[in-house]
Amino acid sequence: MIDKKQIIQAFEYRHACKIFDVNKKISEEDINFILQTARLSPSSFGFEPWHFLVVQSPELRSKLKESAWGATAKLDTASHFVIGLTMKAPLMKYNSSYIHDFMLNKQQLPENVVEQKGKMYEAFQKSDFDLLDDRKLFDWAAKQCYIALGNMMTSAAMIGIDSCPIEGFNQEISNKILKEDLGIDTRLYGISYMVAFGYRVNEPRPKTRRPINEIITYK
Amino acid sequence: MIDKKQIIQAFEYRHACKIFDVNKKISEEDINFILQTARLSPSSFGFEPWHFLVVQSPELRSKLKESAWGATAKLDTASHFVIGLTMKAPLMKYNSSYIHDFMLNKQQLPENVVEQKGKMYEAFQKSDFDLLDDRKLFDWAAKQCYIALGNMMTSAAMIGIDSCPIEGFNQEISNKILKEDLGIDTRLYGISYMVAFGYRVNEPRPKTRRPINEIITYK
Repeated sequence: MIDKKQIIQAFEYRHACKIFDVNKKISEEDINFILQTARLSPSSFGFEPWHFLVVQSPELRSKLKESAWGATAKLDTASHFVIGLTMKAPLMKYNSSYIHDFMLNKQQLPENVVEQKGKMYEAFQKSDFDLLDDRKLFDWAAKQCYIALGNMMTSAAMIGIDSCPIEGFNQEISNKILKEDLGIDTRLYGISYMVAFGYRVNEPRPKTRRPINEIITYK
Repeated sequence: MIDKKQIIQAFEYRHACKIFDVNKKISEEDINFILQTARLSPSSFGFEPWHFLVVQSPELRSKLKESAWGATAKLDTASHFVIGLTMKAPLMKYNSSYIHDFMLNKQQLPENVVEQKGKMYEAFQKSDFDLLDDRKLFDWAAKQCYIALGNMMTSAAMIGIDSCPIEGFNQEISNKILKEDLGIDTRLYGISYMVAFGYRVNEPRPKTRRPINEIITYK
């Protein structure tokens, strides 16, 4: 059990950190901890449709600046820079061998459960969620990856580490870099977000949020 | 600063709880705390494209069982049952009066910043993220709502409260209930997920996850 006040303090502490202290590096233990909270995140059907690239090479970071207009200051200053990858249709489609193997060998489900769950997954993709289209399936898988994103930023804040989530990048150029410079098979993975970690230089402007009664309705 | 070991314990504690103890109710203080962590979650451009319905009425829960095939046991047993709503195009499109008003009055940005940020948001929607299509825009806004979802489940686990995220519902019927029984303007909001909170009855099967070296690559 963790004290509620301490948790809320971490949520208040977190902000989209625009520029990081280049002289302060996150320890290996701490970055491993942050990535563990991504790993332990939930996802629909438990399929973990993610992979995380931690880009530390100055050359690769410099290359990424060609596409990630929203990340330039973070690529220059972040202690750790993560690209959140999401699995594409060849992996995520209900009839992929990846999904079958995942249920059997990663989730360690008995064969009859694999069959049942596979049928449920097929029905779900064919339901009015309408996930047979590659883009819609990618967006659905990406939603799961945003759970992991939220958890990484929250857990970082809880140990005093700042973060900045980034959607400000050109898809086409980024995915070209992903393939040509980062060695990722872009038929199987696409970028859903980037997220930088480090320690703040400046204090943020006060957080604004709609009051709780504007976002909650009891029925 | 919160102890890393305690945080990881909470992540290990969290599981998709299938059935809750009907005799154990979450206190008002605790449910408010969980919802606060949704409220304080980050979102792209800080636009908070979410609303949360807490469905406590037995009649409405019973009604929801008509559409939410993946939620029946949770609708029967959860202490609190939340429907995560996501804003649709009439609110989220770059030229909506909602977005303009939000930047000015909720985010309290000066007029010149509102203009700049509005242009960036327009460019982002017109970029190769390709968000001019209503479904794609909804899915993008929903991704932000999954950050809040992750945070609610994590913060619940940190205070010993169980949860279950739910995508197992018929979109058409659920959105009909949303409109007709829950009084929500479905031109403006759609359901992205449901999530139940309460206290477990049964212990879960051991958590499976791919090992960390299969999901992280350093570059």
